[in-house]
Amino acid sequence: MKKKIETSARRTFIQQSSAIGAGLFMAPSISLFGQTSQPKTNMDNTIASKGYAGKDVNGTMVSWNFERRSVGDNDILIDIKFSGICHSDIHTIKGHWGPQKYPQVPGHEIAGIVSAVGKNVTKFKVGDKAGVGCMVDSCMQCDSCKNGEEHHCETTGMVGTYGVPQETSPTGITQGGYANNIVVTEHFAIKIPESIDLKYAAPLLCAGITTYSPLMKANFKKGDKVGVVGIGGLGHMAIKLAVSKGAEVYAFTTSPSKIEDIKSFGAKEVIVVNSSKDLTPMKGMLDYMISTVPYAYEMSPYIDCVKPYGSFTQVGQPVNGELTINNFNMIFNRVNFNGSLIGGIPETQEVMDYCAKNKIYPQIEIIKAEEINDAWEKVVNKDARYRYVIDAATI
Amino acid sequence: MKKKIETSARRTFIQQSSAIGAGLFMAPSISLFGQTSQPKTNMDNTIASKGYAGKDVNGTMVSWNFERRSVGDNDILIDIKFSGICHSDIHTIKGHWGPQKYPQVPGHEIAGIVSAVGKNVTKFKVGDKAGVGCMVDSCMQCDSCKNGEEHHCETTGMVGTYGVPQETSPTGITQGGYANNIVVTEHFAIKIPESIDLKYAAPLLCAGITTYSPLMKANFKKGDKVGVVGIGGLGHMAIKLAVSKGAEVYAFTTSPSKIEDIKSFGAKEVIVVNSSKDLTPMKGMLDYMISTVPYAYEMSPYIDCVKPYGSFTQVGQPVNGELTINNFNMIFNRVNFNGSLIGGIPETQEVMDYCAKNKIYPQIEIIKAEEINDAWEKVVNKDARYRYVIDAATI
Repeated sequence: MKKKIETSARRTFIQQSSAIGAGLFMAPSISLFGQTSQPKTNMDNTIASKGYAGKDVNGTMVSWNFERRSVGDNDILIDIKFSGICHSDIHTIKGHWGPQKYPQVPGHEIAGIVSAVGKNVTKFKVGDKAGVGCMVDSCMQCDSCKNGEEHHCETTGMVGTYGVPQETSPTGITQGGYANNIVVTEHFAIKIPESIDLKYAAPLLCAGITTYSPLMKANFKKGDKVGVVGIGGLGHMAIKLAVSKGAEVYAFTTSPSKIEDIKSFGAKEVIVVNSSKDLTPMKGMLDYMISTVPYAYEMSPYIDCVKPYGSFTQVGQPVNGELTINNFNMIFNRVNFNGSLIGGIPETQEVMDYCAKNKIYPQIEIIKAEEINDAWEKVVNKDARYRYVIDAATI
Repeated sequence: MKKKIETSARRTFIQQSSAIGAGLFMAPSISLFGQTSQPKTNMDNTIASKGYAGKDVNGTMVSWNFERRSVGDNDILIDIKFSGICHSDIHTIKGHWGPQKYPQVPGHEIAGIVSAVGKNVTKFKVGDKAGVGCMVDSCMQCDSCKNGEEHHCETTGMVGTYGVPQETSPTGITQGGYANNIVVTEHFAIKIPESIDLKYAAPLLCAGITTYSPLMKANFKKGDKVGVVGIGGLGHMAIKLAVSKGAEVYAFTTSPSKIEDIKSFGAKEVIVVNSSKDLTPMKGMLDYMISTVPYAYEMSPYIDCVKPYGSFTQVGQPVNGELTINNFNMIFNRVNFNGSLIGGIPETQEVMDYCAKNKIYPQIEIIKAEEINDAWEKVVNKDARYRYVIDAATI
């Protein structure tokens, strides 16, 4: 699978990336590693990497050796220590959100130690804790990028951490965090404070920011009633974050076995939902509601729980993105329905710093790489409690 | 079909209506008509009425003689002069929004002349112009009712103008405006200014208020870009109203034959939509968008036309209310999707007064009662230009 980037091809890419304003330049030579410990590089300075990849739409994860791009002037190389498992990994590799290129290494909750830096890098030095979330590049020229909303890049769109065509990648696509290392432009790496353990930091990079961003935008007041639907990796972080910001949190789950955990996260009330009737007492009660449910579900009775003119945010992404909304409910409940996509780099740094400072940690279970397939099955079956994190030393 | 309301049954109903706070009392005797011209009443003071009703789910409208309730102390009797045809009439009678009771007279754009008033009535006198829109009762005790949002009554819910079980109605359900008269509590009747012709006033009572209310809530500024999807009875009023309030209006239609008309309504641009590709140039361009499309359609590319954090309001109601929303679009477009249901009585009065004062009239075509079935077919086939209004003298 190794793909050598020839000089002419590289020049073409540099021209292209300039043309699209990507602002990304290739490492000119091995000399850039002067200030770093020496990573394992290949003849053309690409980085040898080992990960777990999906080889096809069946989505069985298998060990795979591949190449990362060489470390460019603005890049850092991270030795990955922990990598969280997100339901998005499963959806993507299994083609639920569209056809994929394989082999593909998923994983966008990446925490590790910086082991090399390019010559222009200022944010990190070797030995620093660093993380990577759901994106690894964007144009950095448009208003959205300049305003720290790189995930809403208006020209090239954000480049997702895995599965997105990328000329600089020897495999042709970005490869994610179920691996022992990653090369990333420093702008798209998050500084992880010394005070937080890497294993807790990892899930903040998707589950944390994806719930933190809409919760902050909801602008709820202390004591406001916030509903959280779906208490998995994202949902349990939504509870902890909303509670920490002073909300009275109502958690909606289909799993009675989660009740005690959910209360320990700080929720005021747990509503176990077997049918839409269980939601009737909550009708019009909540100031705001966020749903992390990653499959199509009967959404309207949940939306009805929000007060008139309040908002309901769907962050879970179902198969093909399709959800049914009932407009009879909408004309009566007067709720604003919206979606929310992760968060920009500054806000991701914000949630990382906030959680480190306030000791808001995800509830995790560390697994070995060989347990990934089993963990995926448990995630789908709602058996995760509440985030599986891969120990990258086992890859 | 005539149903006599016996004394004991009436007492029971009065008790029930007190219990639910309906605040509705039956006419005690014929004496209440002292100040009125004498309507055609029956032995028990019910009002003889003639209308066009659907007899079953096939939805063919046929002439039908039936009874209205007697005119109570707080009621007025309106001799209907004009009655608009709304797509909702078709959806309801054909069971698209749920099973119905038949015979049922649809019609909720009713304009006429007051021909009798109950003894407590203060808002109207015989000879006044009066209208009835989409509701004829509510509890009048809850916060929503007290705040002029009777359509969001929190106890009994609003009582729709047709098809809703109502004990006072001799036919057991409310009967609408495809008829020669109607009895209604004065609170739910709208005063029609002298300056506006009844035939223009009628469509304001649904098409007018249903678009006016969300447009006012959108709180757009002069020069803001407002999109209107679906240019029929509601859509053409949305254009006229938004233009009158200073918006730059973009009209989206699937009917090229409507282009010239739409421009004459004041729209700045008409986008003829054959496929979602036709919407691409409008992506993220609009401050606000309202859709009147009354069937399920590919909604997400339209929602994409709204700027981030703007709103999109769906007022058209598809079969069973079900719409598909794509959350991949929603997480990127950051638009708030909501619905809107008609408007309260004060706001309905407001749009009536506003349109009368500013000479904002619907574009109508007057038809005879015998043409109703043909008109319905044209409405479904998008051939209406733009509102059919029944001349009630032909019923």
